[in-house]
Amino acid sequence: MKIYDRAEIEAAIDPRAAIDAIAEGYAAFSKGEVTTPPVGYLEFQNPPGEMHIKYGYRIGSDVWVIKIATGFYENPATNGLPSSTGLVLVFSAKTGFPQALLLDEGYLTNIRTAAAGAAAARYLAPKNVRAIGIVGSGVQAHMQLDLLRHVTSCRRVVLWARDPAKARSFKVDGFSIEVADSTAALCKQCNLIVTTTPSREALIRASDVRPGTHITAMGADCPGKQEVEAALFAKAHVLAVDSRTQCFDHGDAVHALNSKVVPQDRFVELGEIIAGTAPGRTNDEQITIADLTGLAVQDIQIANLALRTLEKT
Amino acid sequence: MKIYDRAEIEAAIDPRAAIDAIAEGYAAFSKGEVTTPPVGYLEFQNPPGEMHIKYGYRIGSDVWVIKIATGFYENPATNGLPSSTGLVLVFSAKTGFPQALLLDEGYLTNIRTAAAGAAAARYLAPKNVRAIGIVGSGVQAHMQLDLLRHVTSCRRVVLWARDPAKARSFKVDGFSIEVADSTAALCKQCNLIVTTTPSREALIRASDVRPGTHITAMGADCPGKQEVEAALFAKAHVLAVDSRTQCFDHGDAVHALNSKVVPQDRFVELGEIIAGTAPGRTNDEQITIADLTGLAVQDIQIANLALRTLEKT
Repeated sequence: MKIYDRAEIEAAIDPRAAIDAIAEGYAAFSKGEVTTPPVGYLEFQNPPGEMHIKYGYRIGSDVWVIKIATGFYENPATNGLPSSTGLVLVFSAKTGFPQALLLDEGYLTNIRTAAAGAAAARYLAPKNVRAIGIVGSGVQAHMQLDLLRHVTSCRRVVLWARDPAKARSFKVDGFSIEVADSTAALCKQCNLIVTTTPSREALIRASDVRPGTHITAMGADCPGKQEVEAALFAKAHVLAVDSRTQCFDHGDAVHALNSKVVPQDRFVELGEIIAGTAPGRTNDEQITIADLTGLAVQDIQIANLALRTLEKT
Repeated sequence: MKIYDRAEIEAAIDPRAAIDAIAEGYAAFSKGEVTTPPVGYLEFQNPPGEMHIKYGYRIGSDVWVIKIATGFYENPATNGLPSSTGLVLVFSAKTGFPQALLLDEGYLTNIRTAAAGAAAARYLAPKNVRAIGIVGSGVQAHMQLDLLRHVTSCRRVVLWARDPAKARSFKVDGFSIEVADSTAALCKQCNLIVTTTPSREALIRASDVRPGTHITAMGADCPGKQEVEAALFAKAHVLAVDSRTQCFDHGDAVHALNSKVVPQDRFVELGEIIAGTAPGRTNDEQITIADLTGLAVQDIQIANLALRTLEKT
């Protein structure tokens, strides 16, 4: 079994190739070409923490992938470690033997999540992006913006974050960043918005969003979280989810369904839009939403991409 | 993260300590002191293969354990590799960071399974074992016998296996082995019997088993498998399972329940017998059965045992 460390893995990932791989993975997922059992989960109390196991394979692939990710949010304060880490195992689907251990420390999860936002923007953002709105100031806020450079030429950014100090110090190479004092102000200026927070109440209000805007909601990854007001789903023209199963359980979409502002059949999967079996944006006046909760197929795709490069070097 | 290979891990496991650790783990499991989510599973078609993920932790422990095991049964014929392999990951339950990777190639699964049989015999076998009956001739048949040396002084063995050539060449250091031409003949001579086969029909008949016999049924680990005739459960005095949940789903016990020869409340968990909260054998005329399907707590216990030694060396 080959073992690779974070530096090797970071060097092996080309961001454009990552976006392509994630888009291709979404399409394969929506076509039913991916086997991904329910996510495994452990919870810890003292200190509070959690562990997810995502695993599966593309049917016919030579390998399967197991991704283990952890979140122990008291780490930075109590022991100086990052709050999250992770690793990926790749096994042969021909022999069952382990082939590679990717000690990526969570980098692959971060980059595949950022690449998902970029893939959503590639397929749903309006042609002319006036300004990019970033909601949140954490790792994903930075990485989402960093990858958006590959799908839009817009370099003007409006940022809103709960913590004003973090908002003021936010920067990503090549982008000009202005801090908004409310999400309403952000929505007035931006027509490509990415939300990256762990919020439990809507940050993006239906009445604030202007025609032609695309919103990618990245933050809601477990029950109770919400970033987008349910009423915005009724106002939007394209309602995309990464997975109906997941988003109808714990995405932003479930809040819209529970409020009965839209029926289930208004939702399409992003992979269906990418595969051309569901319509995406058809003009620059439409509002579009992509609600992304995170799929094992992203881990499968990004691990395969990393390995293809690592095995050549 | 420390990485250990099979040779280091084998050297680190003391068989007596393994039996103690598994017995202690069963007791903890039955007391509800272990968190073990449902087993993760992947199946492959071409070639046929399977993967299991067992994971969890003892409540209050500093670590959690993830065990990945695979079975690709065409390996020996097609590529010369063993049909099964595996590895174990140990993580800190305080930080979420990986601590150790045990590249045991399935050894830890084999030894924890053999230790489970020895633990069952320690608590349920009659005082005077006349002869040990081993049904099957594979890795577990060898390892079960090898570990039984630590819980009985009997060195006389009667073996039955489907393949007569394998039966004749079967040997384990220190034991005198006689091959029986039927399981009926084996049952006549033995009062401690271990079944280790992937059989899908009963090999041990109720009418063949003599008073005072203990039977450990190791083989039935998934739906459809069976080694012990349902009627034997009605005839036996102690019906032990490693886990009610698992054995009522896919152990030998489920066949007895489906045949309605015994009610669910006749079954106790081996961990309850070990903890002293359920009665075990009370005299040398009783027939006892232990139906073992394999629990994540065994993987947790054996990995902790290995690590304690490895970290000292």
